[in-house]
Amino acid sequence: MKIRYSQITIEPGNPAKNYDKCAAAAKRAKNSGVNLLILPEMAIPGYLIGDKWEENDFIDDCEYYANLLAKEADENFSLIFGTVAFFESVFGAPHKGYDGRKAKMNVACIATNGKTEYRIKTLLPNYREFEEPRHFFDNLTATARASEINGDVQMFPLQEINGVKFGVTVCEDGWDDDYALKPLKILSQVGADVLVNISYSPFTAGKNGIRNRKFSAHAKTLGKPVFYVNGLGLHNNGKTIFCFDGSSAVWNAEGEIIAHSKMYAEEDVDFEYANGKLICTTQTGFTPNAEIQDIHDTLVYGIRNYMAQCGLKHVVIGASGGVDSTLAAALYVEAIGKDNVLLVNMPSRFNSKTTIGIAEKLANNLGCWYTSVPIQESAELTYRQINGLVSRNADGDELTLSLTSFNMENVQARDRGARVLAAISSAWGGVFTNNGNKTETTVGYATLYGDVAGFLAALGDLWKHTVYDLCRYINRNGEIVPAEVLTLKPSAELSDNQSVDKGLGDPLIYPYHDRLFEAWQQWWNHAPLADILQQYLDGNLAAYLNHGDPSDLTEDLIRQHFPTAKSFVADLERWYKLFKGMGISKRIQAPPIIAVTRRAYGFDYRESAIQPYFTRKYLELKAKVVK
Amino acid sequence: MKIRYSQITIEPGNPAKNYDKCAAAAKRAKNSGVNLLILPEMAIPGYLIGDKWEENDFIDDCEYYANLLAKEADENFSLIFGTVAFFESVFGAPHKGYDGRKAKMNVACIATNGKTEYRIKTLLPNYREFEEPRHFFDNLTATARASEINGDVQMFPLQEINGVKFGVTVCEDGWDDDYALKPLKILSQVGADVLVNISYSPFTAGKNGIRNRKFSAHAKTLGKPVFYVNGLGLHNNGKTIFCFDGSSAVWNAEGEIIAHSKMYAEEDVDFEYANGKLICTTQTGFTPNAEIQDIHDTLVYGIRNYMAQCGLKHVVIGASGGVDSTLAAALYVEAIGKDNVLLVNMPSRFNSKTTIGIAEKLANNLGCWYTSVPIQESAELTYRQINGLVSRNADGDELTLSLTSFNMENVQARDRGARVLAAISSAWGGVFTNNGNKTETTVGYATLYGDVAGFLAALGDLWKHTVYDLCRYINRNGEIVPAEVLTLKPSAELSDNQSVDKGLGDPLIYPYHDRLFEAWQQWWNHAPLADILQQYLDGNLAAYLNHGDPSDLTEDLIRQHFPTAKSFVADLERWYKLFKGMGISKRIQAPPIIAVTRRAYGFDYRESAIQPYFTRKYLELKAKVVK
Repeated sequence: MKIRYSQITIEPGNPAKNYDKCAAAAKRAKNSGVNLLILPEMAIPGYLIGDKWEENDFIDDCEYYANLLAKEADENFSLIFGTVAFFESVFGAPHKGYDGRKAKMNVACIATNGKTEYRIKTLLPNYREFEEPRHFFDNLTATARASEINGDVQMFPLQEINGVKFGVTVCEDGWDDDYALKPLKILSQVGADVLVNISYSPFTAGKNGIRNRKFSAHAKTLGKPVFYVNGLGLHNNGKTIFCFDGSSAVWNAEGEIIAHSKMYAEEDVDFEYANGKLICTTQTGFTPNAEIQDIHDTLVYGIRNYMAQCGLKHVVIGASGGVDSTLAAALYVEAIGKDNVLLVNMPSRFNSKTTIGIAEKLANNLGCWYTSVPIQESAELTYRQINGLVSRNADGDELTLSLTSFNMENVQARDRGARVLAAISSAWGGVFTNNGNKTETTVGYATLYGDVAGFLAALGDLWKHTVYDLCRYINRNGEIVPAEVLTLKPSAELSDNQSVDKGLGDPLIYPYHDRLFEAWQQWWNHAPLADILQQYLDGNLAAYLNHGDPSDLTEDLIRQHFPTAKSFVADLERWYKLFKGMGISKRIQAPPIIAVTRRAYGFDYRESAIQPYFTRKYLELKAKVVK
Repeated sequence: MKIRYSQITIEPGNPAKNYDKCAAAAKRAKNSGVNLLILPEMAIPGYLIGDKWEENDFIDDCEYYANLLAKEADENFSLIFGTVAFFESVFGAPHKGYDGRKAKMNVACIATNGKTEYRIKTLLPNYREFEEPRHFFDNLTATARASEINGDVQMFPLQEINGVKFGVTVCEDGWDDDYALKPLKILSQVGADVLVNISYSPFTAGKNGIRNRKFSAHAKTLGKPVFYVNGLGLHNNGKTIFCFDGSSAVWNAEGEIIAHSKMYAEEDVDFEYANGKLICTTQTGFTPNAEIQDIHDTLVYGIRNYMAQCGLKHVVIGASGGVDSTLAAALYVEAIGKDNVLLVNMPSRFNSKTTIGIAEKLANNLGCWYTSVPIQESAELTYRQINGLVSRNADGDELTLSLTSFNMENVQARDRGARVLAAISSAWGGVFTNNGNKTETTVGYATLYGDVAGFLAALGDLWKHTVYDLCRYINRNGEIVPAEVLTLKPSAELSDNQSVDKGLGDPLIYPYHDRLFEAWQQWWNHAPLADILQQYLDGNLAAYLNHGDPSDLTEDLIRQHFPTAKSFVADLERWYKLFKGMGISKRIQAPPIIAVTRRAYGFDYRESAIQPYFTRKYLELKAKVVK
């Protein structure tokens, strides 16, 4: 029999449009004599749509279009595709979910000639951005309830198509390490010839390799071919944006990969299955890239598609001459074209000729629009209006305010974001960007309504060292990022104490703080402060924080900056308090972030604005070593 | 035996502080000869703490303090309190959760002389702001896994204290309508004399009445006394803030309420249990209030405690003379005192003497600080800088921008928020408020970095009609809110087209749009557009949208504004697109909201920034009736 998978793009929350996409794939398949077409998980409704799952009229439409698609099946042609289904539609009896609304499930729909079967997702992910149990019954719950109503309902039925027994699973069902139930194993044991896993799984740096090893092991251990069919698209949950990269792949019964689709490319891939053997008849183009290239491609895909999804064309970027806005400019020009990008330099008296020159050069290298709007006059107007401002109460008491130089740093940042960039972008009919990186975002080293503002934080999941790596990657075929950017001391240039020419810059020691913050936020088991302090005392902190990865962080660098436990602890607590305090308050009001790591801020990493807490173990250790 | 519950305040994420609180309650109880003290759910860790549950060192501390508290038990004194526990600590064997981290549970800890038992929460809520299955094993999962390891582990054991058998449950276990398992019923069936439900449940308008009926029914049906012990406090999940109101209550075996604690008040309440009869020996002070009073008290509690939790003292409020900022000013003065509140009027040439006069009068009535900072000069500076601004590219092409009068409306709003209020609040060492109501928030009728800015949206869960109701409530003992505010046409006063003196104001018809938006966002089963249009066509829309509540909305009012299906549909789609489009983009960057309804924006109502979707049913009906 001839089997095909189509790696297609899925639009979040648009069953009408997704039906068209799927129906077109079905027609192509039928024209090519395909017997079974496999499409991704949730191919009709889309996947990350927030609480739109609660809208029954939306689910009704998904069921309508799923049924319409199922009608494409005939005696020579079957389909497997993902969608949502009410409990009632699958089992013929109404049932409430735990939220009191109509119960529903994430299902693989198997459409054969005149008949539709459902395979319910067994393992529902409930970590990071995932929260499927919020909306769906899992297979165990659904079949248990259905069995009470209808008598014995099978939990893991096979599906025979053209005489071949298919065991069909959905996404997390293939990632069974931490679950008691192992769907692929069970389906194999009950006699599946071919295992199928339809997925809708977003890009995470390093994940493709892990997945390939895991699914290869499934195929080899179970001795069955395995299809992993993933979709493309851009979905968000408000605060975090995820790029679904495809990278569909198929393994033969020996665990060898026989097909592997490219990232972010639509593709039909065909197979012949005969006499228990599966052969791929399409040449697939996946080549494993350096991680930095994957991250680059993901960000370009994310920017391009997020703008398209929001109906946006023009982008204004505050170009300071620093490395973050420089990288942002290069990525946006690549994603949406130079004619849609306007760089604005906004000098005050604290900005150096050096950085202004870099911004101009960058615009020139990119070929995009460039202009300059000085903010000195406006900052001074604000100073005149607020410094010395008198307020009165009913008793005639007076309250006189004054602005410190620190206050004026923030005044400048807000003037750039909320006054200049906002006015320019609305005049141009566009939006302006947030260029903050993950290191700054961790500790809130940015000004609300200033550099925290913007429609999208494309760099918000990149540690500072990745920002540099990406700049170097962008220059792989010649200078786009002005070379000076890569050697310049990072600096906000908001006061005389922040001068790039004098080498005065950010209070962050990036090679160290990048790794420290990563250990706090990104490690699966967040690094406890007590362990960090102990590692410092033991002289093993660099190795601990590097976590097996190469980096610029050495024990010498740590000692050089923090020669005493006292100085180390002061720095540690300073940033920890910001991470767990002001940083959260700023992130609550920050724009969405494109996720590339295994833990992005926003809906992926859920936070509560509470007071930082220091554990007993940490406080006891600190008391021992600091005075 | 003497039983007591203590309705105490629980700090989110601070086991050390919560231990002190609980230990103090235990000491008071022992001094009073109490035999059993009952404390709320999650009394040690706190409840809404985001993904802090993933930090094992934090859980270690919770276990340490729970064990320390359990040590207060002796031969005459036992405790029941809520906390978090690792699977390993309860069952003696390590186990992974579905996220691969150490498995843990939400438990009631029963500490008797030298022994600690755990009762695992059976029903884990997973809707609105709740997402317990993300972090915790439920009772069924935990006991099933433990049984595999340790042999038969009982799922619903009773606990004998002083010869009385207690059936102990946690919060959602008492709200069993939509679950297959009914913990209170099972515990009663296996022989409990007294049923206990420790809770940590936030205020929602109207919920106390529903809960009292439900728990009274439990007691009556099962024929057992029921304790419902709830905590106090303020917890948030970043975007949404919840006020835990206490309102603990106890019912006798006949289902009669015999104790009912006040909202937001710490209280010890004592009972005698003898010969199968439970008698309350403390006079409790709960009186059922009008809903508007509960909402008022919740907002004042929320403002006061959120500021305290963030370590904030001073608040600056942009006082336009409109009803929203007026209500905000009154609430903040009540919550934190007049000397900590500064009202700032920021007129441009579009602001009327009428509204400026109201703002002054308001400050006078409240006795707080007042000042005026005109924004005309700054708005004109921005106009001069941006209108006519020329950008160039490397080819020497020119791009010239111009600012429309609509652009200038937003320039003014941002000038007020991000320039003036931000500078004043930082000069005063404080923050400024967002005064947006829920109606505006629904459709994004506000400017990002302008009136969307602020540290907290205290009014963000109030429909416009509730804003008026609260103003009237605040004036219950005499004028605080200037009477003119209540009759003034709501208007942004950002252009000549928005003049309160000419009666030109907001494009929203509040009596209608309030109810329409409520039907979309707040109804448990969101009102479908197709149903709304059908109701309009049938002449039943007012009754449908009023949903059984009295309101100012009549069918006549709807017909008066929308005499034709075409005009009705145009308005419907205009706002629906904003609700599901621009409104979401603005909410992503909006400050946290204090929840008072059964569905607040933010973490309670999860949204994805996707394109609005119109169902087939709606489009077909529309096609029939419009042209």
